Amino acid sequence: MKNILIIGCGLLGSSLVRKISKKKIAKKLYIYEKSKLNIVKIKKLKLSGRIVKSLKDGVVNSDLIILCTPMSEYKGIISKINKHIKPKSLITDIGSSKIESSKIIKKFLRNDVYWIQSHPITGSEVSGPEHGKDSMFEDKWCILIKDKKTNLKHLNFLNSFWKKIGSKTVMMTSEKHDKIFSITSHLPHLIAYNLVKSAQDFEKKQKYDLIKYSAGGLRDFSRIAASNEIMWRDIFFDNRKNVTKAINIFMKNLNSFKKDINAKNNRSILKKLTQTKRVRSKIVKLKQDTNKPDFGRN
Amino acid sequence: MKNILIIGCGLLGSSLVRKISKKKIAKKLYIYEKSKLNIVKIKKLKLSGRIVKSLKDGVVNSDLIILCTPMSEYKGIISKINKHIKPKSLITDIGSSKIESSKIIKKFLRNDVYWIQSHPITGSEVSGPEHGKDSMFEDKWCILIKDKKTNLKHLNFLNSFWKKIGSKTVMMTSEKHDKIFSITSHLPHLIAYNLVKSAQDFEKKQKYDLIKYSAGGLRDFSRIAASNEIMWRDIFFDNRKNVTKAINIFMKNLNSFKKDINAKNNRSILKKLTQTKRVRSKIVKLKQDTNKPDFGRN
Repeated sequence: MKNILIIGCGLLGSSLVRKISKKKIAKKLYIYEKSKLNIVKIKKLKLSGRIVKSLKDGVVNSDLIILCTPMSEYKGIISKINKHIKPKSLITDIGSSKIESSKIIKKFLRNDVYWIQSHPITGSEVSGPEHGKDSMFEDKWCILIKDKKTNLKHLNFLNSFWKKIGSKTVMMTSEKHDKIFSITSHLPHLIAYNLVKSAQDFEKKQKYDLIKYSAGGLRDFSRIAASNEIMWRDIFFDNRKNVTKAINIFMKNLNSFKKDINAKNNRSILKKLTQTKRVRSKIVKLKQDTNKPDFGRN
Repeated sequence: MKNILIIGCGLLGSSLVRKISKKKIAKKLYIYEKSKLNIVKIKKLKLSGRIVKSLKDGVVNSDLIILCTPMSEYKGIISKINKHIKPKSLITDIGSSKIESSKIIKKFLRNDVYWIQSHPITGSEVSGPEHGKDSMFEDKWCILIKDKKTNLKHLNFLNSFWKKIGSKTVMMTSEKHDKIFSITSHLPHLIAYNLVKSAQDFEKKQKYDLIKYSAGGLRDFSRIAASNEIMWRDIFFDNRKNVTKAINIFMKNLNSFKKDINAKNNRSILKKLTQTKRVRSKIVKLKQDTNKPDFGRN
């Protein structure tokens, strides 16, 4: 049993705290949170784990350190913990893009400390410790980043940690990770933000009250477009090369769709509209979504 | 009390049948359905209402006729009912775009018969009478198309019909309708189809198994992209002028997003990512969506 420090106790950090304490995975559990508002919330929620006042206090006593902050904070955190961290400690993070953050880690982290990156595929449009839940990672994928230099002993330990948390784990390189998630996650979020922005522009220009008619499609996108802006700015900036490529594929297809519509090209459009159905059945079959119509919302 | 004929007994047609019979809104209720498979389903479901073998049989006895078929079938149906329909009958439909279909109606429908268009804002990604439910229209908007020539007596009757069904009604011209829904419904569906298509293209090219990681965003779009292809082809073709304009606004914004990401323009991107949140709160406040995180899916 190890001592664990959670840095950043928002939606996912607090969910880890809940699960770790529920399943008694840590000998001692420390929480570092820089937002005073969140600290008040954590105390009110009576989450287990000792809140430490400085990163140093948490780091000196911990074997596993998990960063659950926006990725833009990694550099500052590394500079604060470098002096105090024990060489045998393992660091991980739960950031959604990996190539850029691995560069930061290589450049700034002390040489004798290991950091193996994780990415649990879960979350929500709401933020803050009050929305966390111990089931957040249950049966969800957690990607572990493995490349030539990864320490296998630490990797095995991290793998068994995430399994105890309830995740299904899979290992891949940061390059493969960033390509896959540019399409399955980063592009969909960008598209959702962009669609809602376009609706707002239209509403302003036409002076129509659109939002009350959003049940026809727009509302689903608005959920995704309500996600945390700092987290998503960091992801878009860090994975900009792959996201740009994904945008380009998307734009090419959209231009082709537009042509088909204007030419009333029946065969081509029906092909487009039917082949996408297969993806939905596959997603439901793989238990990546509920099979209830309309997400069981009504 | 009037005799009502439902033409096309799929998801929405069967939902109307269920609600009309549950609330005893019709004196007699007739159903016309051309798909043999659907007729078998309707009988198995024991839906009330008499299934008629020909459009003629339904039309000669009905005061209110409601088309719940894809819009591309309106022309053929008009040619079949024109001879038999009673001059005092009222026709309506539940199609999702209005300008093009109103042209078909004006051109082909007998002059002494009234057709006032409706558009209930409801539906699902699943099709067929087995998925219908009597609560489908409950507290949902229903748009009634009103222009200079609309017969007010019939309009009032139709308005009270939809209120009995459980809808909230609002009246507008077909031009305003098609503009609003090009942005709140038609563009979101097109974007969802296009995103799923782009993911498929990427998967083929990279040979990565993407779908199992779809929980990060893609799966929400896949629900919308599983909607009925004939219905959506008809909508995209019929409302192509407004949809093209909507695509152009969307593309312009997406290009601006791409520039911001590549220039790491912090201020501009944070503005984009925060202002869209207001739309979500407004949608939830207007009760157009559940306020449960992740649609209450987990």
